Amino acid sequence: MPVDDLSKIVSLCKRRGFIFQSSEVYGGLNSCWDYGPLGAELKRNVKDLWWSEMTRRGNIVGLDASILMHPKVWEASGHVENFTDPLVDCKKCKQRFREDKVEVKGKCPACGGELTEARSFNLMFKTFMGPIEDSASVVYLRPETAQGIYVNFLNVQGSMRQKLPFGIAQIGKAFRNEITPGNFIFRTREFEQMEMQFFVKPGEDEKWMEYWKEQRMAYYVGLGIDANKLRFHQHVKGELAHYAKDAYDIEYEFPIGWQEMEGIHNRTDFDLKRHMHTSGKNLMYNDEVTNEKYIPYIIETSAGCDRSLLAVLCDAYREDPANERTVLSFSYKLAPIKLAILPLMKKEPLEGYAREIYDTLFKSTKYNMQYDVTGSIGKRYRRQDEIGTPLCVTVDFDSLEDKAVTVRERDSMAQERISVENLPSYINQKLGI
Amino acid sequence: MPVDDLSKIVSLCKRRGFIFQSSEVYGGLNSCWDYGPLGAELKRNVKDLWWSEMTRRGNIVGLDASILMHPKVWEASGHVENFTDPLVDCKKCKQRFREDKVEVKGKCPACGGELTEARSFNLMFKTFMGPIEDSASVVYLRPETAQGIYVNFLNVQGSMRQKLPFGIAQIGKAFRNEITPGNFIFRTREFEQMEMQFFVKPGEDEKWMEYWKEQRMAYYVGLGIDANKLRFHQHVKGELAHYAKDAYDIEYEFPIGWQEMEGIHNRTDFDLKRHMHTSGKNLMYNDEVTNEKYIPYIIETSAGCDRSLLAVLCDAYREDPANERTVLSFSYKLAPIKLAILPLMKKEPLEGYAREIYDTLFKSTKYNMQYDVTGSIGKRYRRQDEIGTPLCVTVDFDSLEDKAVTVRERDSMAQERISVENLPSYINQKLGI
Repeated sequence: MPVDDLSKIVSLCKRRGFIFQSSEVYGGLNSCWDYGPLGAELKRNVKDLWWSEMTRRGNIVGLDASILMHPKVWEASGHVENFTDPLVDCKKCKQRFREDKVEVKGKCPACGGELTEARSFNLMFKTFMGPIEDSASVVYLRPETAQGIYVNFLNVQGSMRQKLPFGIAQIGKAFRNEITPGNFIFRTREFEQMEMQFFVKPGEDEKWMEYWKEQRMAYYVGLGIDANKLRFHQHVKGELAHYAKDAYDIEYEFPIGWQEMEGIHNRTDFDLKRHMHTSGKNLMYNDEVTNEKYIPYIIETSAGCDRSLLAVLCDAYREDPANERTVLSFSYKLAPIKLAILPLMKKEPLEGYAREIYDTLFKSTKYNMQYDVTGSIGKRYRRQDEIGTPLCVTVDFDSLEDKAVTVRERDSMAQERISVENLPSYINQKLGI
Repeated sequence: MPVDDLSKIVSLCKRRGFIFQSSEVYGGLNSCWDYGPLGAELKRNVKDLWWSEMTRRGNIVGLDASILMHPKVWEASGHVENFTDPLVDCKKCKQRFREDKVEVKGKCPACGGELTEARSFNLMFKTFMGPIEDSASVVYLRPETAQGIYVNFLNVQGSMRQKLPFGIAQIGKAFRNEITPGNFIFRTREFEQMEMQFFVKPGEDEKWMEYWKEQRMAYYVGLGIDANKLRFHQHVKGELAHYAKDAYDIEYEFPIGWQEMEGIHNRTDFDLKRHMHTSGKNLMYNDEVTNEKYIPYIIETSAGCDRSLLAVLCDAYREDPANERTVLSFSYKLAPIKLAILPLMKKEPLEGYAREIYDTLFKSTKYNMQYDVTGSIGKRYRRQDEIGTPLCVTVDFDSLEDKAVTVRERDSMAQERISVENLPSYINQKLGI
């Protein structure tokens, strides 16, 4: 049974150390979440796979720009002026809503009271740099990582001697002061983006747009996500952002419905042109092949790291009542723990032997492992199923004699007897390492 | 010749794509820096090595808490009250200084003018969550990652069923509104920390403090940093933070002098006690071995990611005038690019063969490589030396006949002729992969 209710994911995530509410001991901070030990490892895997997918191509390089940027960046990008939501207040219960999400116009969705006129609310978090809190010292927490790439375009291109077409990839935090965040880690005020900006010659943009649509969809399928729960949504007129000539979302069917996980946008030369105009700096590319100077077009692939992770969690979640278990059926490469070593009982010399097998594997490999001796073996299998561990190695009394162990696979629950000597290569082959 | 001047590092970092000034096209943002393609890869290596050093022990797990936390966290930790610097203004030239860094008291270091009385300036960046900018919506950008670990202590311990002693490791951004930032990436307002909090039974804290001092110093030596440029500095009375029973800095001799790179602190039960008191939640550990309940002591190892990276850069920098080159002599595991493939000339069929060797290696390995065909071979060697690439593979006209290439080692400049067939295993062995 797939997951039908986000609260099941939230509950498993807390219980098993994937995701906790931020500052929970203080009653939590609205819409902020902390990744626990297993969540932190899962997130590392999500990010590392994206990073190597992008930067292991030969024509895409990485970047890690700061969160605080010059305020002029956000004037040029249009965020100071346009990055707003229409905010309305209920005159009766004082709650706040996004006007465009209110179903019956003018009426409070909570109490039915009268709503105020809408006013523009800018979603950028602002703070003050230096000791004086005045307009001259205002800086913003970046609402997207993309602009860090655009303002570094010439520095990157020159220092790395890149020729068009080439891309710049970046993973990093962004912040949006959403009026109505929610749905667990789906819409949060602090989140992580994985963005790649691909610079191309004008006229070749539509071809590259097609290329990246295909690449990015194939990527999610390659992560093991059910292809039936993935689809494109093309932005129609009215949905298109002011900078976009064409735009597609990759949507996943979450328990809350079809929602955007990644956006692929043809941003044309909008951003570089704006920065060129606002900064007065020449940001044109010097094409040595054609001897032309021009502003490149940009195809952007912008993925939410937390949303990808949520999709991975929802997609992996299985209830298996016949076997009295819940399973996170992650693709092996995403699983935060790859292997558990389980001595059948807490008894010597059995435990010593199991510990020895654990230590040997631990020293000779790089993947994450757990050693667990607490509770019945069935209970321990269920625990590993619930955190998505692909392989469980059970050391039993026969192991002391035949120097072999039982390896159990998570999804099929099939068990194989493997000699301890062959265990490392058997595991590597199973895990595809 | 080692580096005597930070400006040489700054200049190389910009020229070769390691570090750029943030928002440079807008004149830069004071003390904010962006990691370019090679800097981003170097930083990933610094962080990944720290992460595996910490979490590959069996008794330390990871965490990734949010930057925005409940404001009560910073009341409990003492930051709202105590995290201040004494700020003075020059009445004449209007510049601002930290009073404790002014040499002649009362006199402006810039113009000699009279300084104002000192006032307390809180170093936390503050912002407003939600649409109303009032005191009820104030939140802070975390000035340290440690508190995210403390408030999650029980969630982590419980969900991961940890027993004392155990640790929680975290890498993440922190923000301090420094009055006088400077010295490149040494003191910045936005920076990245790598912190590990080790929870121990009270009474065992001094033993673990010794253990971690030793471990952490050995770690830096293991990164290839010159042991003669590393030392401990013990905090004497007056230097000790309000939470610390004992504290040591690991200092590195930067071109700007001996400076802290990491702090190792015995924080006692100060933090958990404060959070327990402020939140009203029971944060005691239930010791199943002794049947006692107590608040654990904490040994903290707190490293600056950017400072570690700066130490790595300074330590690796060599001027080699005899060979007309500058070398970044990184340990191989830190080098952002491991290998360059250089066809002797831009000529077929030489280039096609070189490209073939590149493609084969690229597909079968995971490390970063460059392919470079522009300029004389000597110039290309110098370029790779300057970015710290351990191995250069030169494909020459003989290669087409003898199916062998010349591999040049960065530091010794020694060259070896290796058959293309044996190249992958030769490289892996050299790189220690």
